[in-house]
Order: sequence, then structure tokens, then C-alpha cells
Amino acid sequence: MTEAVAFVPGHVTGFFTADHDDDPTKAGSRGAGVALADGVTVRLEPGDGVEVNGEDSEIEAVDRVLNALRSTARVVVETELPLSAGFGVSGAAALGAALTANEVFGHGLSENELVTIAHGAEVQAGTGLGDVVAQARGGFPVRLEAGAPAHGAMDGVPAARNVEYVSFGELSTTAVLNGDTEALTAAGREALSALVAEPTLETFMHVSRSFAREVGLLTPAVREAIEDVSATGGEASMAMLGETVFALDTGLSDAGYDAERCSVSLAGAHLR
Amino acid sequence: MTEAVAFVPGHVTGFFTADHDDDPTKAGSRGAGVALADGVTVRLEPGDGVEVNGEDSEIEAVDRVLNALRSTARVVVETELPLSAGFGVSGAAALGAALTANEVFGHGLSENELVTIAHGAEVQAGTGLGDVVAQARGGFPVRLEAGAPAHGAMDGVPAARNVEYVSFGELSTTAVLNGDTEALTAAGREALSALVAEPTLETFMHVSRSFAREVGLLTPAVREAIEDVSATGGEASMAMLGETVFALDTGLSDAGYDAERCSVSLAGAHLR
Repeated sequence: MTEAVAFVPGHVTGFFTADHDDDPTKAGSRGAGVALADGVTVRLEPGDGVEVNGEDSEIEAVDRVLNALRSTARVVVETELPLSAGFGVSGAAALGAALTANEVFGHGLSENELVTIAHGAEVQAGTGLGDVVAQARGGFPVRLEAGAPAHGAMDGVPAARNVEYVSFGELSTTAVLNGDTEALTAAGREALSALVAEPTLETFMHVSRSFAREVGLLTPAVREAIEDVSATGGEASMAMLGETVFALDTGLSDAGYDAERCSVSLAGAHLR
Repeated sequence: MTEAVAFVPGHVTGFFTADHDDDPTKAGSRGAGVALADGVTVRLEPGDGVEVNGEDSEIEAVDRVLNALRSTARVVVETELPLSAGFGVSGAAALGAALTANEVFGHGLSENELVTIAHGAEVQAGTGLGDVVAQARGGFPVRLEAGAPAHGAMDGVPAARNVEYVSFGELSTTAVLNGDTEALTAAGREALSALVAEPTLETFMHVSRSFAREVGLLTPAVREAIEDVSATGGEASMAMLGETVFALDTGLSDAGYDAERCSVSLAGAHLR
């Protein structure tokens, strides 16, 4: 089997809308987030199934990608990111599987085509709506219109800043996305129009905090950490969807938290 | 004055079309190329004018960017790339000026807005058509539709390869773009549809060579280098528009040329 390794950045979403559509390439989410240099590497081995950090695992979006590409392989995922904590690991694994399978099996597809397959797989699996297109881009991605490249539209906040994150536990993306998302989408739309009017990191953090408060997903630990960072003059908000707080610069460690430090991944997902 | 430094990758175009339009955000070029880790850094100082590698210089696209942003500054450009040799240095300087002026003067514009300003400035100066949008993206950018982000459409060739380049001299982009571009655009359109049908690096290099031969821009030195690389089993073509040859991997040094080695810039233009 040809060797191919893909790197896909982690992605933390600050706010979002849930835009449903029967066509998974049109479904997705608007919103904004941060692509992280902490991410996911994916390689293929002969066999089948998925493993994450050496353990057998189930990632439906990855299975769907391999089915769509009619490829059989064992997908080996490694990551330093916490799982099910709002870092887009399932979307990253799906996009990494698409990039490596394209290379190993010589499918000859373009980056947009591979992103479209991974985005559709993640949407159909119900495990995410907007991570894949953001991870494909890198930087501070703004999702202006939902969907895969043919339908979606992206922009970015121009900024050079590091981030920190701390994770207190897991949240189920599927449970939230399968619930009533109308109020959430209204709040996300409002946050997006404020960010489009002034696309700076300060606005991004501010509207992300408002969004997190409004949609009622804050847990006590998350709320306390965000308040602690604010109290020391920093900027923090909640990673959608995980029991995770992210901050600009050294906001969390300044507030006394044992946080991971991480630069922004200026590059989107790519083969190594 | 606030400190801000932008990095913009060099960009070598393999083939292109010239798509004229009275609206500079709709004008531009389709085609494909490579974003290089060798690039341009831009910073601003109090004053006015432009300097490149310590020498006073004139880059009309940079002046136009500062005018559009109503900003006054001295634009300090540094680059290891050869000038007027097909590396998109003027577009890179324009985009770097837009990114740094936005940061230093707090204009609060998004990445798409800054790319649009730099693209329009470069088109109006007549010094380039497609470098700015490619430099904003990184990787192996494919320009599916011409123009700034609101009108253009981009894709990418998924690949992890290094490149080499050697430059034999200058070519005037303006002279070519102001000439009859009809045959050139027909050849570029044909190259693009072949690449879209099979978006691999092998196709990219192959159609780029066909394009370079057809449009009659090969100089004797360029033709000889491309043939020498082919003779040793490598892949090379001409950088549009410069008397420059680029090759995949170590194609040029394998053929005995004293070439620069360079990785691909996976990241697009960004603040440092």
C-alpha cells in the first residue's frame, strides 16, 4: 500500500447555525471558529475498521467516506486532542481519510471534491455540520454560507494570535443537533452578522460568548472558567460542542488554569 | 506605529487565461500554479513610498492598496525571490500591504475584503491577474473562475511535493497582458479543463508544458532547461510570466542546474 499521511487541524467553533437540507452538500452551518495546530493525523493500512490512538473505534463519517470512495482500508487516526469535546475530531478523521484514500488509491479527485465527500459524510452521520469546511481552510474561518464548497462560502478573520484550551468533559454533538435548533440558529445568525460587520478577533470572542450564554449550553465549569478569564482581562468562550473553554493568547493560564497552548493552523488540511 | 508583519507566498503560474472586465473585482484569470514557501514579507513604517530589499522602488499595486485603504505609510518589502521573473512579487507586496495596513490602522476588514482590494489594485496596475487570489489560498491553487472572492472560484490539487526553480531573466507581464491574449486564453481554457478532469500534479505539469509551448513564450534557455529535466525523467515547466523554470521535487538539480529548492506554502497569506 502506498504511504500517505494527512494532517487535519482541530477546529473549535465559537458560534453556529444549524442549516438543514435534504442534500448533505447543501446542509451545514454558518458560524466562525479557530483552526488549531493541534490536530489529527490519518494514515491508511491494509485491513478495515478505524483506530484512534491505538484503540479500535467507530467513526461513522470515516466509514461513509471510504464507502463513497469505494476504498477498503484500515484508517489509523492519531491525535493529542480530547475526543467528543468540541475539537472536530470526527470531521478531521473523515477529511483525513478522504485525502489519504485519494492519494493511496489514485482516485484523482480535487481538494474541493474531497472536502465535499467528507462534509457530506459528517452531515449524514449527524456528528457535525461545519468543522470539515473550516478544517479544509485553516486560520480563523468564517462560514458565511453553509455547505460544501460548491454551495458554501468562506471568509476569514485576519489575525496572528495563539490560543489556549482546557476541556472539562464531553458533550454529545448529535443530541444537540437532533434537538430543536431554531433558537440556536437565530442566535448564530445574529452573531454572524455582528462579526461580518466588524471581522476582528475581539468581535469574534465577544459574539461567541453572547451566543454560548443565549443557547443555554454552558455548564457550571465552563461558565466559571470564562468568567475567571474575563476577570483577569482575557478573552475566552465555549467550544461548540464540548465541555471545553478556549481563550486568546494565555488567557486561561493567566487565570490559573492548566491549559494547553496551541498556535493557529494557518494551513488547512493537507497531505504531509 | 503598531507593529505588523505579513507573509505572502510566492506564486508560480503554470497556465492561465486573461479574463478582462471593466470591474476589476470580476477581471482576472483562470489557471493553476504553486504557492511557494519562498515569499515576501511586508511591514509598514512611518513615511511613504515603497522599498524592496532596502532599495527605493515603485510598485503601483501597493500604492493603489494604500489609497483604497486611505492609509499613509512606507511599505517595506523583503524577499529572496527574483523580481519580474514570474513569482508574483508585486501581487504579494500588494496583499501584504493590505494585511498590514488593516492591522496597523485598525480598518477591521475581513480576509476576503483585503484580498479583493489587493486583487483589484494588481489588475488596475496591469501587473498581474491571478497571483493575489492564489497567494491568499496557498497549496497548489486552481483558479476555476476569475476574479476576487465574491466572483472567483478556487480549488486545489491535493499533493505533498517540493519544487525547485531557476531564473534566467525578466519578462514584462504588462507587455504580454496588454498584447493579444485571445490565443493564450483559448490555450489556458483547454489546459484548465484537462486539469479539472484529472486534478493531479502530473496533469498540472503536463498541461502547463503544452500551454507554454503553444503560447510561444518559451525562450531558448527556458526550453532547454525543460527538455533537460524531461530527459532525466523529471517534470518541469515555465513560470508565467518570467524567464523562469520550475520543477517538481529535485528535477532541476538532477538535470545539473543550480536551482533553488523550496517547499510549497500550505498556508496562504497571513499576518505573522
